[in-house]
Amino acid sequence: MATARDLFGVEFPVIQAPMAGVQDSALALAVTAAGGLGSLPCAMLTAEKIEAELQGISAATNSTINLNFFCHQPLPYSKQQESRWLSVLASSMEKYDLTAQEIKAGAARNPFSHEVADVLEPHKPPVISFHFGLPPDELLTRVKSWGTRVLSSATTVEEARWLQDKGVDCVIAQGLEAGGHRGMFLTDELTTQSGTFALLPQVVAAVDVPVIAAGGVNSASAVNAAMSLGAIAVQAGTAFLLCDECNTSPLHREAIKGSVGEHTAITNVFSGRPARSIVNRAVAELGPISSDAMDFPHAATAITALRQRAEAAGSADYSPLWCGQNASGCQEKPAAEVVKSLVAELNLR
Amino acid sequence: MATARDLFGVEFPVIQAPMAGVQDSALALAVTAAGGLGSLPCAMLTAEKIEAELQGISAATNSTINLNFFCHQPLPYSKQQESRWLSVLASSMEKYDLTAQEIKAGAARNPFSHEVADVLEPHKPPVISFHFGLPPDELLTRVKSWGTRVLSSATTVEEARWLQDKGVDCVIAQGLEAGGHRGMFLTDELTTQSGTFALLPQVVAAVDVPVIAAGGVNSASAVNAAMSLGAIAVQAGTAFLLCDECNTSPLHREAIKGSVGEHTAITNVFSGRPARSIVNRAVAELGPISSDAMDFPHAATAITALRQRAEAAGSADYSPLWCGQNASGCQEKPAAEVVKSLVAELNLR
Repeated sequence: MATARDLFGVEFPVIQAPMAGVQDSALALAVTAAGGLGSLPCAMLTAEKIEAELQGISAATNSTINLNFFCHQPLPYSKQQESRWLSVLASSMEKYDLTAQEIKAGAARNPFSHEVADVLEPHKPPVISFHFGLPPDELLTRVKSWGTRVLSSATTVEEARWLQDKGVDCVIAQGLEAGGHRGMFLTDELTTQSGTFALLPQVVAAVDVPVIAAGGVNSASAVNAAMSLGAIAVQAGTAFLLCDECNTSPLHREAIKGSVGEHTAITNVFSGRPARSIVNRAVAELGPISSDAMDFPHAATAITALRQRAEAAGSADYSPLWCGQNASGCQEKPAAEVVKSLVAELNLR
Repeated sequence: MATARDLFGVEFPVIQAPMAGVQDSALALAVTAAGGLGSLPCAMLTAEKIEAELQGISAATNSTINLNFFCHQPLPYSKQQESRWLSVLASSMEKYDLTAQEIKAGAARNPFSHEVADVLEPHKPPVISFHFGLPPDELLTRVKSWGTRVLSSATTVEEARWLQDKGVDCVIAQGLEAGGHRGMFLTDELTTQSGTFALLPQVVAAVDVPVIAAGGVNSASAVNAAMSLGAIAVQAGTAFLLCDECNTSPLHREAIKGSVGEHTAITNVFSGRPARSIVNRAVAELGPISSDAMDFPHAATAITALRQRAEAAGSADYSPLWCGQNASGCQEKPAAEVVKSLVAELNLR
């Protein structure tokens, strides 16, 4: 079985999970410089911004950086869904003097496209990870023609097999402990989502490609545990949220550090798709799962407007506070220190 | 830190999880004979039956057997809840020609009591584990006065701290991968339930007493992973469900072996309390969580009657198919073989 070193040229089997909205290439570069595999979340970036980030990365390092993209099937913005969603949000909007007219499309989450592939092609990125499945066959073939290693997340054994059949180089087994968006794409049934302890070994048994463990991996002993269960590497996100190089907002940091961070839930109220966040007012009062939330990513538009008002008033009530089920290991340190602590016990095995 | 050998006199750090309804002392004795700690679920047994089992155990072994009891706060049987529950079940009852008059109280689930303690006292049981918290202080003091080691399950860090404060000897960290009833007792909010990867290390960090890992532990590598995360032993249930000495019904065995076993859910439709079962018709159509389910354990009465009719007709549609999130490791073998396979890699560490 190939190791993380074989696949990504890294010293340590640690991938920093791409976290759209809270990080840019600064975190990715710091992790890569420390011997892990840094990731740049591109789902919320324009093609121009991606080009700028890639130029910055090329200037800074010869090492590998993983580029991450969403590849959901885009659904139209429905006025009918909007009016239902706004009626659910009415009292919150009133509280913050926000009118429907003031709500403008926020940061878009567009699926991977040929337009983005045009930007990437000259760079021949060595590693790309996808979330929510894979892009259409023709686009995937184009990416693979660059020699790019392709990764994607599986939240069930069935998804892992599907990804392998489509030709991914590695499967990321995303246990339900993980923060942020569930990568689920063959089902929207939340009861299919398993803890890492159950999912990881079943995925390892089900596919022949290497498996990367995600979900609850935030310490040296968790890295060892994941390797015991058959992972060739881990993908850690929450562990990096308080790092110096992470753009996590002060309100988000406060929530992670406070005891509120002990209670997270899988919620669709921030984007329309299930994602794990710390339970704040929005999650508690609107969700955690709301049948009124607009289809992904459109639920985000109104919530983002509300969030901006609330954050300006010092409140995280409407902020997506992405966080995994174990925030206890988060360190307010340079990312290099986190990488070091995650691999601290590897030699003992 | 004390080891499983120190605490229970066992050779291996493997506790067979008590599984009320699918096992008796035969499984417990087989596990104990193989060097693990067997458990006898007493929650659905009368005092007379417990006495008989204890006599059988004494005659068979000098080794330790863990006795398990529920200690929920009993709630009255409400006619109002019953009529709501029966109206939800009406079409299913009609299908099986079951009338409300024919529904009789099934196997009761009574909390641990002084009456039961009277039966236990002469035996001075070395280990007792509780589920749903702990019995009232006076009763707990009585149990501890026998020199009995007391264990109980925690599903959150808060519950683990509460149990330690009450004086338990070990905390069982029950990750949400676990089959059967969630031990949750300080909250009924399901979003507080964490995967083993997140829960176990947080519980280990939060308490000074030894921690036992439960939830998704069904292979040698999973045992190693749990030990990496700080457990001094594991509690495995699902791994034993297909054992020769287990009374798992043929329909239940079939569900575990078939692909249906890949999809479980936490449901309250079988008893009124959240428990993990394979998703069958009852879970899918009535739940997984139904606000109409009667308070624990009363929801079971009507479902048990329905189950009996359905099972007689060869259907598992209304059977509580308790099972964890990873049934892939279940072996149709003597329990001793399962114990052996769970500890097969322990020496490698």
